[in-house]
Amino acid sequence: MSNNMRDCLRKSVLDMTAYTPGEQPQEGSVIKLNTNENPYPPSPKVVEAIKNALTSDRLRKYPDPLGTKFRNAASVALGIDPDSILIGNGSDDILTILTRAFVPESGLIVSATPSYLLYKTLSEIQNARIELVPFTNTWQLPQAWPYPGANLTFLANPNSPSGTLVEAPEIDNLGQLLKGPLVIDEAYGDFARHNAMGRFQKGAQPEGIVITRTMSKSYALAGIRFGFAVANPSLIRELIKVKDSYNCDALSLEAATAAISDQVYLKDTVAKIINTRNRMFLELGKLGFKVTPSEANFLWCTHEKHSPEFLYLELKKSNILVRLMRYPGHEGIRITVGSDSEIDLLLQVLRKLV
Amino acid sequence: MSNNMRDCLRKSVLDMTAYTPGEQPQEGSVIKLNTNENPYPPSPKVVEAIKNALTSDRLRKYPDPLGTKFRNAASVALGIDPDSILIGNGSDDILTILTRAFVPESGLIVSATPSYLLYKTLSEIQNARIELVPFTNTWQLPQAWPYPGANLTFLANPNSPSGTLVEAPEIDNLGQLLKGPLVIDEAYGDFARHNAMGRFQKGAQPEGIVITRTMSKSYALAGIRFGFAVANPSLIRELIKVKDSYNCDALSLEAATAAISDQVYLKDTVAKIINTRNRMFLELGKLGFKVTPSEANFLWCTHEKHSPEFLYLELKKSNILVRLMRYPGHEGIRITVGSDSEIDLLLQVLRKLV
Repeated sequence: MSNNMRDCLRKSVLDMTAYTPGEQPQEGSVIKLNTNENPYPPSPKVVEAIKNALTSDRLRKYPDPLGTKFRNAASVALGIDPDSILIGNGSDDILTILTRAFVPESGLIVSATPSYLLYKTLSEIQNARIELVPFTNTWQLPQAWPYPGANLTFLANPNSPSGTLVEAPEIDNLGQLLKGPLVIDEAYGDFARHNAMGRFQKGAQPEGIVITRTMSKSYALAGIRFGFAVANPSLIRELIKVKDSYNCDALSLEAATAAISDQVYLKDTVAKIINTRNRMFLELGKLGFKVTPSEANFLWCTHEKHSPEFLYLELKKSNILVRLMRYPGHEGIRITVGSDSEIDLLLQVLRKLV
Repeated sequence: MSNNMRDCLRKSVLDMTAYTPGEQPQEGSVIKLNTNENPYPPSPKVVEAIKNALTSDRLRKYPDPLGTKFRNAASVALGIDPDSILIGNGSDDILTILTRAFVPESGLIVSATPSYLLYKTLSEIQNARIELVPFTNTWQLPQAWPYPGANLTFLANPNSPSGTLVEAPEIDNLGQLLKGPLVIDEAYGDFARHNAMGRFQKGAQPEGIVITRTMSKSYALAGIRFGFAVANPSLIRELIKVKDSYNCDALSLEAATAAISDQVYLKDTVAKIINTRNRMFLELGKLGFKVTPSEANFLWCTHEKHSPEFLYLELKKSNILVRLMRYPGHEGIRITVGSDSEIDLLLQVLRKLV
């Protein structure tokens, strides 16, 4: 780029490193245990709903900007007020909307670390500061939270890459300290013992917290890009101003509506994944891995003898992709809970390797 | 909302009025001539492509973040370098990405007026300033451009609501004056006598201009949300940092790829719309309308006797939606070019009305 065009870009954008998502090979027969996709198909009702919506009229017309049908279905499924729901093009879109709504240039974003790397990327795009507060050794929050005045505080719960859960009293404690909103990023909430959705049930309208959810993991819909936020309706009305008018497309809206309406299927899929997760935890332990107990659909591991990089590269040679992740003071591999047969193959390769 | 939460939102967001998209009735048999949707179906290859992609595997896995297949197809269709293309969740997503990449807080966005209202909304979300430069009486740019130092200059070409086109030498002239990039928003470019895409053909990599396109209008795909930008590849690489990693979903990518590959269908549809537009222009003129000659898929009208509001409301009573638009010094109705039978009905109602 000429110097002229460089001068025109915001310096924060020019200086930043792009967020690197996990590898997404579009071809080939790789076993993908690197981006926490669901090994099971979405509810059969999803494909049916998309097929039914696949008319010229739906394709050529703009979708409902507010996603009313989805909001009503989610309201029934989760027992919350439809007006407390904001639709998003994936929960990344929701996290972007929240950042733009709350964080001015030079404002402050705070998150625990190690956690979802996108929070840092969002701060860089917004030209805001970010402070990362280390988790305790048991993956809980520090007793004293050093940044109560943050414009926005992100808490991934369960957390990635650790898969660990911060307990409800600790969340209450943090929430009470904070001036700005606490965003509880529950991308993996359906796989955990508990989540924060109960706070919005039966007409409750708490202030100060926003829950974000994605359909990519537990609902097996990473391909259609759909997420949502749950917050006080008066806040949702303000956030709607910040989103693109038509941020969710007609087919994704249908898919998400069908998926969230099929809670029986969700619970069945989640139960299967938790079973496999428990088995992985035991078997990896036998192979010399140190595995963090997980409340998500992945496991965070290091090995007593082998480096994470060695394991990542060797598994890749066997066409198994896991995610190698490096944070200050933490380096490991994050392995998605796959199907039972995928995990059998993983364990088979690992038995030869370690 | 409690005062506490109000204090936390950015003031620019709290103070802004949301962008109001045209009415989108989700039910009923309304004739929609208000949001410039295409009256014809998308290419039959689009439905076929979505059906073929409708597998559990595509739904549950993340899509290609860069949209490689679409970029290659667009490269062939438009004769441009695939690396000069950025994919977006509608061209609104692209306009958002450009704003975030170039415009700091308190920065300056400039556009001609009356034009696309979203430019103002984007400046408000970014907490930037916006200056609107009036078009001349013949819908051209003023000889002297008052804001050469803008961080970003938007030019909708053809323009909405007028449907008029700024000529190439005027664009060159403006581009040479500007310090920041000129965004040529060609949402309606396929309906016009000429567009700026030729500037990027045969390996040319111009600096300083960005073309934005949507699949919502000429390709009849408003429901799937797909747009793209064309710019110098070195700039595209920077803009990729600012977009959400997975901003386009798997089915939309397939739909857009199929649509842009079927240029024969596009040209056929566009020719039909232009024919109807010419007929509307003549017939509305006979009914006492003052109609601006249009290079888009809509017509900007006022009437010698009746107010725009009267016409809008009376047409609505007959289940015909047009867009009532008010700008300082300009008030009128914008009528989308529908199918021939829809326009026959419109003219029939208007004949009784005026």
